[in-house]
Amino acid sequence: MFDILIIGSGPSGMTSAIYGARSGLTVGIIERGAPGGAMVTTASIENYPGFSKIDGATLSMNMFEQMTNLGVTFIGEEVLSIKKDNDIFTVETNYAKYDSKTVIIATGTMQKKLSVSGEDKFTGRGISWCAICDGSFYKGKDVIVVGGGNSALEEAMYLASICKTVYIIHRRDEFRADSMLVNKAKEFDNIKYILSSTIKEFLGDKKLEKVLITNLKTNEDYLMDIDGVFEFIGQTPNTNWLSELGIVGENGFIKVNSEFETTVKGLFACGDVIDKGVRQIATAVSDGAISALSASHYIK
Amino acid sequence: MFDILIIGSGPSGMTSAIYGARSGLTVGIIERGAPGGAMVTTASIENYPGFSKIDGATLSMNMFEQMTNLGVTFIGEEVLSIKKDNDIFTVETNYAKYDSKTVIIATGTMQKKLSVSGEDKFTGRGISWCAICDGSFYKGKDVIVVGGGNSALEEAMYLASICKTVYIIHRRDEFRADSMLVNKAKEFDNIKYILSSTIKEFLGDKKLEKVLITNLKTNEDYLMDIDGVFEFIGQTPNTNWLSELGIVGENGFIKVNSEFETTVKGLFACGDVIDKGVRQIATAVSDGAISALSASHYIK
Repeated sequence: MFDILIIGSGPSGMTSAIYGARSGLTVGIIERGAPGGAMVTTASIENYPGFSKIDGATLSMNMFEQMTNLGVTFIGEEVLSIKKDNDIFTVETNYAKYDSKTVIIATGTMQKKLSVSGEDKFTGRGISWCAICDGSFYKGKDVIVVGGGNSALEEAMYLASICKTVYIIHRRDEFRADSMLVNKAKEFDNIKYILSSTIKEFLGDKKLEKVLITNLKTNEDYLMDIDGVFEFIGQTPNTNWLSELGIVGENGFIKVNSEFETTVKGLFACGDVIDKGVRQIATAVSDGAISALSASHYIK
Repeated sequence: MFDILIIGSGPSGMTSAIYGARSGLTVGIIERGAPGGAMVTTASIENYPGFSKIDGATLSMNMFEQMTNLGVTFIGEEVLSIKKDNDIFTVETNYAKYDSKTVIIATGTMQKKLSVSGEDKFTGRGISWCAICDGSFYKGKDVIVVGGGNSALEEAMYLASICKTVYIIHRRDEFRADSMLVNKAKEFDNIKYILSSTIKEFLGDKKLEKVLITNLKTNEDYLMDIDGVFEFIGQTPNTNWLSELGIVGENGFIKVNSEFETTVKGLFACGDVIDKGVRQIATAVSDGAISALSASHYIK
């Protein structure tokens, strides 16, 4: 029986584990992949305070060691379901069942991808899903933002203050984003629009150099030189296995209060998987610390 | 003219600076002491994710370098007042006046005092609020630590490796600190406990020599010879210079919404100085990141 069982070992989950263990509680953490979550695949992190520059894998291993040195049990399995009975949670994985007094869900999100040729090859070598993380690598350079929603427009404006030119490529000729944002983006001289178009292929040698663009109205293809591409075509929270618990909002993210409690007593959630505004490592560690202290408080 | 002017350079202020500068904005940070705030005087930090164990001075310098490498202007002055006129803030220090489009207050807290007789007289002459600053003055001597929270226990263990005997005086018979810390402290032979007790008076000639202790259960008073006293009984927000702006709550902390906005447009606050539940480096960096992004959003 664990005091706290955490699902997902990104920065929020691992920080929950660190704070839970330091509170004298028995803590387990279940992860289907490598410790670190989305962080582990980030080439270079420059915005986590304390490290001017660190690769995601090293930061992930630092947190992993810090957590396991405190006696946290790491369980490399995939969670299938959570059930609650008589104030005890049972978490079923692909290998076993674990009982716990509290559960913290920190399963994060997956970035939606265009799923076209060359995308896997140039991931982290010209293709990014995070302007705040990677924008400064493209200072004075030309980049493409793919998407037509609020985040595409917001991130394009963020990049416009750093990059030489930002091209927004969008499948339709109208934006799904708020008109206020669309108007605001029009005030930037260095934001250009390639509408009714999509990227068909990513090309280059060791890093991204060109994209093959299709105009969806004329069906014409053409090549364009580019330094970087940022895809903002949506985030998918990893919550579809949770539908039975009734804690997931219409947008697929988990709703929590300021103590990171869900509507189920003893069940907490933190990090990118919750419904919130800013998704950064710096914000994930805060969520993780507070949710573990809330869980500790609930147990005591 | 700055885009963002930050007051206070603890972990939240420095994270605001990092995120502000990375957004392409002109950022200044005003600090009357050493960069790092309360963090810089912390002997050993073991709960900031990414570092299993780091001293506060090193973590502070890491963040300082990360911030100044991004072009943030560090201003070593003391702020006297903030005024807003025509959407521009003017921050007056003991040396100059600075204009800025937005201001982020991250002034943190100061250690609370017992406020009993003799305390002012012996401040710096036997009474201290910083073990790492003053601990070495008490090598091989007897000291008292006042308090029952995490910092009291952590600082007591730090002092136990320097001093002959460390007496922890706490008003209750149970500790508020994490049970892991309480257990760890019990392993030190030279940490002794004086529970359900408090210091009523500080006595001595030119420097502290004795304390008058009251047992709160029996109401008995007795004198105890001591070389030094370290107080760790909580925090007072550094906000008394801000009373004119109407952003400070009854408890002295600044009220902000989830975007870290105060009731004054363009004026933000983050870190230990705001009214919130958990005050950790891990939560401070989150506040700092979000407040800078909110300030950036406000400007654009």
